[in-house]
Amino acid sequence: MGLSITKKILSSHLLEGNLSAKEQITIKVDQTLWSDLTGIMGTQILESVQADKVSTNPSIIYCDHNTIATSTENSDDHLYMRTAAQRFGIYYSKPGNGICHFLHCQRFARPGQIMLGADSHTPTSGALGMIAIGSGGLSVAKSMLGEGFRLTTPKVLNIKLTGKLQPGVSAKDVTLEALRILSVKGGIGYIIEFTGDGIKNLSVPQRATIANMSIEMGATTGIFPSDEVTRAFLKAQGREEDWIELLPDVDAEYDKVLEINLSQLEPLVAKPHMPDLVVRAREVNDIKAGSVFIGSCTNASYSDIVKAAKILKGRKVHKEIDLTVGPGSKQVLEQLIEDGVLKDLVEAGARILECACGPCIGIGQAPPGKGVAVRTSNRNFPGRSSTTDASVYLVSPETAAATAITGKITDPRDIFAVEILQGCEEPAVYKIDDSMIITPNDVEDYKNVEIIRGENIVPLPERGALNEAINATVVLKLGDNITTDDIIPGGSNILKYIANIPKFAEFTFCYTDPTFVERAKELKHSVIIGGDNYGQGSSREHAALLPMFLGVEAVLAKSYARIHKENLINYGILPLVFKNKEDYEKIDMDDVFAIHDVYAQVDKGEVTVKVVNKDIEFVTSLELSDYDKRVLKEGGAVNYLKNKLK
Amino acid sequence: MGLSITKKILSSHLLEGNLSAKEQITIKVDQTLWSDLTGIMGTQILESVQADKVSTNPSIIYCDHNTIATSTENSDDHLYMRTAAQRFGIYYSKPGNGICHFLHCQRFARPGQIMLGADSHTPTSGALGMIAIGSGGLSVAKSMLGEGFRLTTPKVLNIKLTGKLQPGVSAKDVTLEALRILSVKGGIGYIIEFTGDGIKNLSVPQRATIANMSIEMGATTGIFPSDEVTRAFLKAQGREEDWIELLPDVDAEYDKVLEINLSQLEPLVAKPHMPDLVVRAREVNDIKAGSVFIGSCTNASYSDIVKAAKILKGRKVHKEIDLTVGPGSKQVLEQLIEDGVLKDLVEAGARILECACGPCIGIGQAPPGKGVAVRTSNRNFPGRSSTTDASVYLVSPETAAATAITGKITDPRDIFAVEILQGCEEPAVYKIDDSMIITPNDVEDYKNVEIIRGENIVPLPERGALNEAINATVVLKLGDNITTDDIIPGGSNILKYIANIPKFAEFTFCYTDPTFVERAKELKHSVIIGGDNYGQGSSREHAALLPMFLGVEAVLAKSYARIHKENLINYGILPLVFKNKEDYEKIDMDDVFAIHDVYAQVDKGEVTVKVVNKDIEFVTSLELSDYDKRVLKEGGAVNYLKNKLK
Repeated sequence: MGLSITKKILSSHLLEGNLSAKEQITIKVDQTLWSDLTGIMGTQILESVQADKVSTNPSIIYCDHNTIATSTENSDDHLYMRTAAQRFGIYYSKPGNGICHFLHCQRFARPGQIMLGADSHTPTSGALGMIAIGSGGLSVAKSMLGEGFRLTTPKVLNIKLTGKLQPGVSAKDVTLEALRILSVKGGIGYIIEFTGDGIKNLSVPQRATIANMSIEMGATTGIFPSDEVTRAFLKAQGREEDWIELLPDVDAEYDKVLEINLSQLEPLVAKPHMPDLVVRAREVNDIKAGSVFIGSCTNASYSDIVKAAKILKGRKVHKEIDLTVGPGSKQVLEQLIEDGVLKDLVEAGARILECACGPCIGIGQAPPGKGVAVRTSNRNFPGRSSTTDASVYLVSPETAAATAITGKITDPRDIFAVEILQGCEEPAVYKIDDSMIITPNDVEDYKNVEIIRGENIVPLPERGALNEAINATVVLKLGDNITTDDIIPGGSNILKYIANIPKFAEFTFCYTDPTFVERAKELKHSVIIGGDNYGQGSSREHAALLPMFLGVEAVLAKSYARIHKENLINYGILPLVFKNKEDYEKIDMDDVFAIHDVYAQVDKGEVTVKVVNKDIEFVTSLELSDYDKRVLKEGGAVNYLKNKLK
Repeated sequence: MGLSITKKILSSHLLEGNLSAKEQITIKVDQTLWSDLTGIMGTQILESVQADKVSTNPSIIYCDHNTIATSTENSDDHLYMRTAAQRFGIYYSKPGNGICHFLHCQRFARPGQIMLGADSHTPTSGALGMIAIGSGGLSVAKSMLGEGFRLTTPKVLNIKLTGKLQPGVSAKDVTLEALRILSVKGGIGYIIEFTGDGIKNLSVPQRATIANMSIEMGATTGIFPSDEVTRAFLKAQGREEDWIELLPDVDAEYDKVLEINLSQLEPLVAKPHMPDLVVRAREVNDIKAGSVFIGSCTNASYSDIVKAAKILKGRKVHKEIDLTVGPGSKQVLEQLIEDGVLKDLVEAGARILECACGPCIGIGQAPPGKGVAVRTSNRNFPGRSSTTDASVYLVSPETAAATAITGKITDPRDIFAVEILQGCEEPAVYKIDDSMIITPNDVEDYKNVEIIRGENIVPLPERGALNEAINATVVLKLGDNITTDDIIPGGSNILKYIANIPKFAEFTFCYTDPTFVERAKELKHSVIIGGDNYGQGSSREHAALLPMFLGVEAVLAKSYARIHKENLINYGILPLVFKNKEDYEKIDMDDVFAIHDVYAQVDKGEVTVKVVNKDIEFVTSLELSDYDKRVLKEGGAVNYLKNKLK
């Protein structure tokens, strides 16, 4: 049988393990990426383990989240990261240069390589035939220092795209259709490989939109072949030499196959509050919007914005709509200016935001209470917009633009002849200018760079090895699909404390249960109960670090999102799984758990939990590699790394 | 003797009083303006007094401060204001349309008229030969409802501008030179009238830069003649019909005259932390900057930004500098795009911010701790940037651009041939598009508009009439030049509570004395001691309302900034003045004041203060008009207005 692209890349990067068994493997990492949210802790870790210089190429921090800098803390963080990047041989992309995943596709992603990125939307670079996996910042730090990345050999789900998108229908609708079919759990354990005749009509930015949201399906990542479309894109970016052809064998074997006929798709909408609540735009055209945002790492390419501008040109934004547009990068913005597209947008009444994540992560444009926001971004979890009771609908740029004009969710085909959208292509040659990236070459003597530490840069909390006995109280009992946004929400007023764990921890579960922090602190030793797919969404490892800091010693859930499980291990929290899902019902808040012989049980991969106050007990499983067990017993990966480098 | 422009306009608007005596007069107000920070309380007042429709034309709310909307509260505020504006016949300029003062010059300011604006930089419209006075939002609300505006007849200070600015020297340097000469107190009690041969070479936007900062000199406002330059500007804005010629008589009489020779000026810099700490740029060219901001109501015109772009074109922003540029309005932004100027800026590495106040008021781009920011804005008070220990230097756009390239404060003449700046003119015809302004004509049935009230919209606190006896403790003793930013700082994390007084009050004096709020609450009745020029800076009336809410019953200072004194009266706080400045030394923190027969003493304009714990007493003065006395005794202007409309 032939090989998928996934298997080809994994084979060429395999350091340990066997690809054909369902076991943990270790793979070589070529490139690494942090955003400004994860790079803070990342560089703090490099400092604490007294690293010399990183070895992945490039290793890069993109300052793209907290660019508004509403407070000193953000700017302290940036200054710290910039100087730490210069100290450790890391590239630093300045605020305003663009969104990490988008910029990475443009300037660094390489077919056939493997990238580890500390941001869940890292799969975006899968558009260029690379395996780009989102992970915790700590795992990325390890890879920067030469460690391979460990994961359970992923299965491969093949989504075959056939046909051709009709005008007014967008790459976003492809990914929403996949979400409709698969749900936010359907991709768990898989790498999604997109193939089929239909892909030849999809540009790299369109592929990026689709790969980007593979994480919303729970997948490890998404990947496209590297073909002539890829070659043309790389050539237009002045880096044709980075191209290699990478196609699946004709008889490639897949664990699962799914087909989507592009010709039959219609404009779709993901309703609040989950990206898989997908309906046709026409089914919700009675929903009145208050604001519209076109941007984010999902939909901020040149052609995305050109299409929106074509719809808006000569029209005016509805009086009661705030329309904001955030181009994906400086490169896109320059092209939009040069081609008069930005002018069309501004004339229509669009507000141009910086090339940054912005509203997608709740940094700016928080809707009013109970507000309705229509956005081209990738997540609509409650609270992510910084407004707990807002309703966010996810759409394509075309649907967003049509909505901005009418004031209601609008299928673009219903208000104008969508044929005008034909010919909205990417530029034949991109404007290349990396002057907003500080490279290791810009630094004369990296060993002597002074790292600047503002008051907000507080050393990471330390913890000891795993306890041999756990006596802990159930502090929270939660349902299915709890996101890392539920655990620690976004928004600039919260994220500004990301380099200051004691302050940041005050916001843990703040919308889900405002009493959590106080209770956890009082209990000192606690346990969280979760349902299925616990920890889905953003990769932010603070969703593990903060509970650890507050005394959470174990999570017991029906299943975990991959990155979050890895993060729990990295911070020394037991990620227990119900062997018998019905046991979930037996547990109540304030139950007291006792777990004995923890080390032996961890080694065994089976942990018996006694519920002391109810005098019952049940068995849970702990699916861990030997490596995971070692990390867990040492009390997490920072301890592991320290011990190793000693 | 002939008349100044000031006297001509005042005469034609005089409702009560005598212009030739130093007494209170009442003048008719033609136009009114609120920003989104002041419009909240303004519309709350209109609601509480059950107003029907406003009568000034236009009455307008510009949403230009909290446009980033980092939190729900901002957006709740905007929605509330927009719907309230529609209810009361007020124009509403949407976020992204531009900065209030700048937009007002472009679209509404009219020679010969009087405007009252609830923002201290309202004098900007003086560039067009109108008397534009900054005031509290409450005074503006009164004017909107047909009341005249009361003030002590201002003296007129004539600043005669001769000669011609040399390339590289800017209108900003004119206003900095005036500040150097006059200091932040030199203009108190005056309207500054700019005349002289030199003005014919100053465009309306340049005049706006100069008029804008007349408030920094403590002046009531600044005004330029309406001449052929004004006519050309209005014509280019499609409103030549708004033009009238308005020149001072040849033998016009002034209370004071000052001359500035434009030809002799050099690039200047106002050092931290006061706009009058002015030195030549070359004297501080060793100061390393971290960020540069070009924008604000002072320096965000087309030609301002074109000049900066000329300097930046073909160069790159220094690697360690963050350069942000915020155009003054959508009109400016469109022109910058069309003419390729925006492209030059972005190519150089500038980050383009929205057309809004932004960093000037600490909303975004907070410097890191101890950071150095170089800005074209108008104030560099401590904390205003949202970073308490940052150092802000005020400069022209040319100096800012030069600094962005070198990374150090730089006189533009020192790094390139400034002759390239010649010919950087305003457009001959402006792009006219008011589609981001919702006008009363857009509203079908104003009486039935539903005003939308989010959770952040909390009714204003009420208070009763003035107490007949005051027993209050000294809760703060402060020095000279205390600003309203000291009393209640800016920054998005604070200003978001502007519609929620109990929450907002928690930040009163938070940088000056973090214990103030707790102590004031405990004391219940307190007094603040100030030095000279108490309450200078921003017009924000919350600097009076919040102390009132926290139990401050009197302020005793050596002198007051005009707007703040008016605000104290409007909120029922006694603005006492030391008769004998040496008495200031006798007072300590925690002293207990007793004032008896308050009503009689207010009427007398002389108030005896007993310091109970020291068994001493001294006499203070209270310079009030009969109208002020009435307002004060009723417990402030909201009560006055309620009683009047009853």
